Amino acid sequence: MTQEKTQLDPKEIYDYVKKNARLVEDYIETLGASGMQPSGGIIRPVFSAAWLEAHRKLAAWMREAGLEVRADGIGNLWGLSKGKESGPGYASGSHLDTVKEGGKFDGALGILAALSAVRFLKELYGPPRLNLEVVQLCEEEGSRFSKSFLGSRAITGNFPAEELDQSRDAEGISVRQAARACGFDPGQLAAAQRNDLAGWLELHIEQGRLLETTHTDTGIVQSITGIKHLGVVFEGQADHAGTTPMDLRSDALVAAAQAITNINSLARDLGRPAVGTVGKLSVQPGATNIVPARVELTVDIRHPDPATLAELNRRAHEICQNAAASQSCGVQVELLMEKQAAPMTPAIVKALEDCAAELGISSMPMVSGAGHDSQVMVEKIPSAMIFVPSKDGRSHSRAEFTPLEQIMPGIALLAQVFYRLAY
Amino acid sequence: MTQEKTQLDPKEIYDYVKKNARLVEDYIETLGASGMQPSGGIIRPVFSAAWLEAHRKLAAWMREAGLEVRADGIGNLWGLSKGKESGPGYASGSHLDTVKEGGKFDGALGILAALSAVRFLKELYGPPRLNLEVVQLCEEEGSRFSKSFLGSRAITGNFPAEELDQSRDAEGISVRQAARACGFDPGQLAAAQRNDLAGWLELHIEQGRLLETTHTDTGIVQSITGIKHLGVVFEGQADHAGTTPMDLRSDALVAAAQAITNINSLARDLGRPAVGTVGKLSVQPGATNIVPARVELTVDIRHPDPATLAELNRRAHEICQNAAASQSCGVQVELLMEKQAAPMTPAIVKALEDCAAELGISSMPMVSGAGHDSQVMVEKIPSAMIFVPSKDGRSHSRAEFTPLEQIMPGIALLAQVFYRLAY
Repeated sequence: MTQEKTQLDPKEIYDYVKKNARLVEDYIETLGASGMQPSGGIIRPVFSAAWLEAHRKLAAWMREAGLEVRADGIGNLWGLSKGKESGPGYASGSHLDTVKEGGKFDGALGILAALSAVRFLKELYGPPRLNLEVVQLCEEEGSRFSKSFLGSRAITGNFPAEELDQSRDAEGISVRQAARACGFDPGQLAAAQRNDLAGWLELHIEQGRLLETTHTDTGIVQSITGIKHLGVVFEGQADHAGTTPMDLRSDALVAAAQAITNINSLARDLGRPAVGTVGKLSVQPGATNIVPARVELTVDIRHPDPATLAELNRRAHEICQNAAASQSCGVQVELLMEKQAAPMTPAIVKALEDCAAELGISSMPMVSGAGHDSQVMVEKIPSAMIFVPSKDGRSHSRAEFTPLEQIMPGIALLAQVFYRLAY
Repeated sequence: MTQEKTQLDPKEIYDYVKKNARLVEDYIETLGASGMQPSGGIIRPVFSAAWLEAHRKLAAWMREAGLEVRADGIGNLWGLSKGKESGPGYASGSHLDTVKEGGKFDGALGILAALSAVRFLKELYGPPRLNLEVVQLCEEEGSRFSKSFLGSRAITGNFPAEELDQSRDAEGISVRQAARACGFDPGQLAAAQRNDLAGWLELHIEQGRLLETTHTDTGIVQSITGIKHLGVVFEGQADHAGTTPMDLRSDALVAAAQAITNINSLARDLGRPAVGTVGKLSVQPGATNIVPARVELTVDIRHPDPATLAELNRRAHEICQNAAASQSCGVQVELLMEKQAAPMTPAIVKALEDCAAELGISSMPMVSGAGHDSQVMVEKIPSAMIFVPSKDGRSHSRAEFTPLEQIMPGIALLAQVFYRLAY
């Protein structure tokens, strides 16, 4: 097979992808119409009518591309480009669900890029040597049920059956009920597990501005960052803002301000890819003329190196303690959520880097600061991710946008690596 | 008259006040029952049923004390201890209205202290030489109509007649309608103006912890502080907290935190009585994993010296500009409210200081950090204020409390100064 590969002119794939840009655009726009609101934002939670409509569009396009289509018990949609040889194959895709008022690219683009790449390869070179699959993963955003990654956890065997009934949406509807209402058979959850995949690839918009600001075509993800969310409460004393001298106060907001400043400096001083953010804050009693008695805030810290994340966490706690003490306030710090860092599989990362070089498209190694299905997939399947630029870094917003000419290099890279691995 | 005064043993007045402490306690508890909620807090906005009930209780007690009782056009209640001589007399009192869920002491205690002092003097020494009046001022808290100080502004001629119809409560009821419904005649507003008062005294709880922490019986107010309220908006950019490196952010909350810290330091460094407070703050979009795009906050700065307040204001603006610039954010600063500082009348202040010394009660010169009717009265009438301690500095709260033994020195001081000025 190595011989065949060296014979291929990488320009051929890239040119074919570019020639078919209009088809990709049609896919994006047509899929984006499902769940589209008058505002221009998309509301497409998993197992909703809008989601099911989009699911059916995808299934039709898969059939049109000559793929064998099936849905598994949890509602993942698979389109198989059957290989001439048996043995572990490769898959690519992403999620179809959106946040409230999300955009057309987050998730959806990864499925459409996989569909396009597999379709174009089939049109150019016929059936692959090994199976290639396009996958719609049924849930990633966590905006309907308390737990997220339903699809990728079912595939990797990390979806306990009891969760089908225990995890419910705001209306009390369970995952099982919602999946059944869409015509899936959650009783077949166990059969959704896949032990026969040699590799997984996910193309996604960057959701940041690094590719855009450096004019780079693609990001090749080396690792998905580790995350800790802390909930912090500063407790001071409510006092009259006019009659209480500065030196007799316990001002919870002054304590919080010191913590915000120092957590920002901490992440800044560590340098990229460390990040630290206070995104949510509330003040009580919250009156112009009353010294704040209580401030609740969240801290989001991320780093791909577990030891560095642990150190960030330790120092964030220390910062909150010191800030509280400086204002004679009390403080409680609670761990709200954590996700372990997920390094991508070096062999797949290397294949992507080599293929980018072959195609003559620019690429840069990146850390994904956001979570993705690939962090679940990599627990069981060799995995890597391709990022394409996000205009102004927008995501989870109707302003989310990547121009067609910035999508084509990513699809070409996906096609090229699939060719290398499976043709 | 001077001869008579030197003959008086100041202990006599103080002893009489202490002997009648139970009456003062009854006044406080009985008045506090009007508007009392199951929570223990009082809701007694001006012209409400609870307020009118309290108004009637006061009128009855005034009559019982032998005072001539009348209400003016805006609803101030006057109780006159008729002087043997004609000529300008003296008055004392405070306001009857409370904030929502307020306490029994803010405002009410000032009326009851004046009633007690005038009554005790009459019981001890008969009618005064000059008129002494007890006043219930009809509105101070500003919790019903858009403008406050209705009573004291009517007395000093600072109440424009058109405000009777223009100023309305949340239900659209005008001041005129509300006053009429209580049986007052707002058509007689102009006649509420008093040009025949030689002096005004107001006893009030401190609403701070200075007297309590220094174990001082009374505060003698030298000046009511000047206030400026600023509304500040920081505008940054909403970005994904995971995918946006620290050095590419415009974090509105980090800018706000710097402003909060520096405004606090500014007031702290200036020293008492300067104060600077950020009491209200909101963050948008306000999500754990999104860099804050917009923060709105309020700044409350106070100082009794107009030049220092102006400097505080200039530097607060500068702090906000610098904080915004440091994070590449925009900023707008708006003046929401300002009150000029109101120095008390030196002759009346001196009389209070002398009488405190005569009585052997401790006193300290103070700046009132909160606003009071006396700041309106002093524009036309020589005025001063007496502060008594507030437990834990509480006010505008059901926790508001001053024990009887900490009230008696204030009432004795008020009686003593009335004796000196009007007997």
